[in-house]
Amino acid sequence: MRFATVLTIALAACGAATTARAEPILLREMGSFFVGGRIAVVSDRPKIMSGTPGVQQFELDPNGEYWVEQMYVQYFKVEKPRGRVPIILWHGGAMTGVFWESTPDGRPGWVNYFLRRGWDVYNVDGVERGRSGWAMYPEIWPAPPEFMPRSSPAERTHWRIGAGRPAQGAKPDAIELFPGSQFPVEAYDAFVKGFVPRWYHTGPATIKAFLELVDRVCPCVVISHSQSGAWSFDIAKARPDKVRALIAIESATPGSPGDLDRFSGMPIMWLLADFIDTDPQRVKAFARNLAFLKTVSAAGGLVDVVRLPELGIRGNTHFVMSDRNSDDVAGVVHGWLAKHGLHQ
Amino acid sequence: MRFATVLTIALAACGAATTARAEPILLREMGSFFVGGRIAVVSDRPKIMSGTPGVQQFELDPNGEYWVEQMYVQYFKVEKPRGRVPIILWHGGAMTGVFWESTPDGRPGWVNYFLRRGWDVYNVDGVERGRSGWAMYPEIWPAPPEFMPRSSPAERTHWRIGAGRPAQGAKPDAIELFPGSQFPVEAYDAFVKGFVPRWYHTGPATIKAFLELVDRVCPCVVISHSQSGAWSFDIAKARPDKVRALIAIESATPGSPGDLDRFSGMPIMWLLADFIDTDPQRVKAFARNLAFLKTVSAAGGLVDVVRLPELGIRGNTHFVMSDRNSDDVAGVVHGWLAKHGLHQ
Repeated sequence: MRFATVLTIALAACGAATTARAEPILLREMGSFFVGGRIAVVSDRPKIMSGTPGVQQFELDPNGEYWVEQMYVQYFKVEKPRGRVPIILWHGGAMTGVFWESTPDGRPGWVNYFLRRGWDVYNVDGVERGRSGWAMYPEIWPAPPEFMPRSSPAERTHWRIGAGRPAQGAKPDAIELFPGSQFPVEAYDAFVKGFVPRWYHTGPATIKAFLELVDRVCPCVVISHSQSGAWSFDIAKARPDKVRALIAIESATPGSPGDLDRFSGMPIMWLLADFIDTDPQRVKAFARNLAFLKTVSAAGGLVDVVRLPELGIRGNTHFVMSDRNSDDVAGVVHGWLAKHGLHQ
Repeated sequence: MRFATVLTIALAACGAATTARAEPILLREMGSFFVGGRIAVVSDRPKIMSGTPGVQQFELDPNGEYWVEQMYVQYFKVEKPRGRVPIILWHGGAMTGVFWESTPDGRPGWVNYFLRRGWDVYNVDGVERGRSGWAMYPEIWPAPPEFMPRSSPAERTHWRIGAGRPAQGAKPDAIELFPGSQFPVEAYDAFVKGFVPRWYHTGPATIKAFLELVDRVCPCVVISHSQSGAWSFDIAKARPDKVRALIAIESATPGSPGDLDRFSGMPIMWLLADFIDTDPQRVKAFARNLAFLKTVSAAGGLVDVVRLPELGIRGNTHFVMSDRNSDDVAGVVHGWLAKHGLHQ
């Protein structure tokens, strides 16, 4: 297992990012589809009048079958691929694929970054959120979701955006950022608008749908963020022949134990941003995760632990893809993939 | 007001569609952002433990501010624009922008069609759905939404997919299609997966967000479908200087009365698919809508009423963008826009 050995590659990629940004994106194909899902049956509910009164109404029987727990996938295939396999981007909890598209302050996101470097890109909305829809409760799912308040940076210390909870009605710039923070705080409200309601029981359905995606479009590279970090290890372990490289960004947890030799020969990047020490839970998690990563490494996994500040990339929050230097962080990932022969 | 006078243009465009499909899409920019929304305040709820047990937990105060009723917008700007203004695609009820991206059976959707012909394209998820998220009830919104059962074609006669409600557990091909139907029935389940929960009170919030979009990115062409048809007339009336052409596809209702001279000089297409006569409500609606369109025309609006079968385009359902001949219908719209000097 290596720590922060990708410095040279990272800096080279950062330089390239600046010049490449204005180039057009040439696509041979783009579109979307759904994977996964199951049919749930609802019964014993009374019939309702559906439609808009005075316009078009009809009696609707709400009993019967519903498609639930499907997963939305949007894809962009470049005209001249330079990535040897596609990249799948997998967002974190309460998030959707939106966070990879543009930054909150309107700069091009990681979808653009990787397309411009010749990677085919798949971008999902996990089960339960965004364009994947959600299922009625309590008939199909057990309970209502958790909603994301606007004023939560202080509660969510693992976000590491800032220390101070903004008072009700306060402007975003009332957030007390960590010194040198790269978070585009003036766009905090645009950032919050991207979050969606969140459930905590949909992991197995997400794994099922994601495996269907992998079986459909891989071999590939999987880039996970936060909540999906642990799941991405489970996916890679289930399909070691399909996942050519795994990048877990700011994951709080690793995958499940057992069968770690399935990671043998698989390049794995474990990427951490800045300000870890401000969050005691994250410090504790890092120690626990490191122990896991060492066992993966001992089982033959090609594990690189990358702490951005050790590469001279400072000021990043939990949301590296939203920060002002988001392209620099993408450059670290891109350079590392190139080093592993996945880009030509 | 004219009826089906665009035959020649339509057929010419259909021919072009076939040859253009395989050409690459060259983009100068792509991304997404949010418009609209308001801050809602929630109070008197107890604190909760958020996060995943055993991993990362924190106390969350669910009281305070929430962003609600924002609208998600994804955009694609072509490298060499031939459309004189961008197109905004606006889906129907219980739908999202997904329905314009790919057809249920995996063919390129209208986003691709218009990009390949040199139009910049904006594609939204209306307030309440998809990547726009939704607000908690009953604290912020009044009640739960309506969910879309899998087995509803017969109830939804205005869909005009088929007459028979498939039995529980039945395969999609059990749907009794109308003779000559263009609906890709084998992909019925993929089609249903794209529908999302629906509320009926979010119209004003949607209008507010959409006006913000118009003020940000127009002059433009607005293409609405079904539920958004009436709203698109309201938008055009509010911003006659910004909406260069309005295409309402399979709308059940026109806009609100009054100030119709604001449509003066505005090209307006009212597009209807096939099998109208199978739905008595739609027949009645058409008579009512025609009366409205005549007053718009008398006030100077350049109204074209297009019934696809009168152009020789037969078998279309309510979902012309999903049908097997979706590109032919897009060709009618494209040709009509070109005729009005909006494409070079």
